[in-house]
Amino acid sequence: MPDPGARRGRPGYDQATVLRRAIELFNTQGYDATSVGDLARDLGLTKSAIYHHVPSKQALLSAALDEALDGLGAALDRAVAATGTSASERLRTALEQSVLVLAEHLPAVTLLLRVRGNSEVELAALERRRVVDEQLAGLVRAAVAEGALRDDLDPEVVSRLLFGTVNSLVEWYRPGGPLEPQALARTVASLAFDGLRPPQPHPPAPEA
Amino acid sequence: MPDPGARRGRPGYDQATVLRRAIELFNTQGYDATSVGDLARDLGLTKSAIYHHVPSKQALLSAALDEALDGLGAALDRAVAATGTSASERLRTALEQSVLVLAEHLPAVTLLLRVRGNSEVELAALERRRVVDEQLAGLVRAAVAEGALRDDLDPEVVSRLLFGTVNSLVEWYRPGGPLEPQALARTVASLAFDGLRPPQPHPPAPEA
Repeated sequence: MPDPGARRGRPGYDQATVLRRAIELFNTQGYDATSVGDLARDLGLTKSAIYHHVPSKQALLSAALDEALDGLGAALDRAVAATGTSASERLRTALEQSVLVLAEHLPAVTLLLRVRGNSEVELAALERRRVVDEQLAGLVRAAVAEGALRDDLDPEVVSRLLFGTVNSLVEWYRPGGPLEPQALARTVASLAFDGLRPPQPHPPAPEA
Repeated sequence: MPDPGARRGRPGYDQATVLRRAIELFNTQGYDATSVGDLARDLGLTKSAIYHHVPSKQALLSAALDEALDGLGAALDRAVAATGTSASERLRTALEQSVLVLAEHLPAVTLLLRVRGNSEVELAALERRRVVDEQLAGLVRAAVAEGALRDDLDPEVVSRLLFGTVNSLVEWYRPGGPLEPQALARTVASLAFDGLRPPQPHPPAPEA
């Protein structure tokens, strides 16, 4: 977990718990509408007890966004660095890993996807997100260039649609249900690469 | 345009303009954080002049959500009613039409997708959205049943991923740019049905 500030502690609650509850509140009632007092009441602590754990509300936001971006960034870095494989396989890995990060860090990723750049912390997060998006777009371009992907679709549009599909999972996917993250990741990748049509056992006859 | 209340008017501004600006403000600063006073200032009107156009802020929200839902609902109704075609073709039509509605009513659809059920108006909109989602899921199931779609993927998950992909367009698509709505709609449908792989001219040899 990223460190949301100075190392402080208090028996009964640790920084991780405070961060988890803060992310939940930011997601349900909005970052601006959530005060440190709200967080203290939610946890049954005093405001000064909260400040034993974290220096500021903004530090909690920063730690939450870092959690999401560290995960997504590492997933893309690993995929891009797997140079022994084809760009198409790296793209598939990047997609699957992004889904797994989203499932594992769902509240933090949900918060990240709502960030609009209203502060320096948010602007820095948007910039990191742009780098991750660009890594995915690079993988799409490389896979098209190696002939493994259709070349009739704009790679920029394709990469936006792919990340859009992954990001839309925050709207409905809830870990702990019957759909395992690994199975979801494979479904997303399979749909992206193979589409909805069943495999065609026989190709159409060649044109005369 | 849905009528946001009683028929009232004032020279210089019509209800449609007031609704357009209200949707923009709701999207940029949030519905709760936007007052009728903000809207009046934005339009250079007095609050009472606004109330000549619309009875309440909630009526504007309701009209905005109806605009999005009327469009999406009509698109799905038309697709479902096209019984002379295969379920697979109806699904493709539904997808393409949803993209076109989203492009034509982008601010209203953006607002709809942010609704969380915080009032009766929002709960009613969520219920209408659920009906539209269920129509799409029904088309997916019918297309799987007729053998036109792969049967190794859960139709519920597939329909969520499809609408997730369409809905994610509000995050980046801006009409008026080089990417025409029709081309975007075809790309979304083509990616969904055919995936990223290039067409295979020769199938793998049958297993011995």
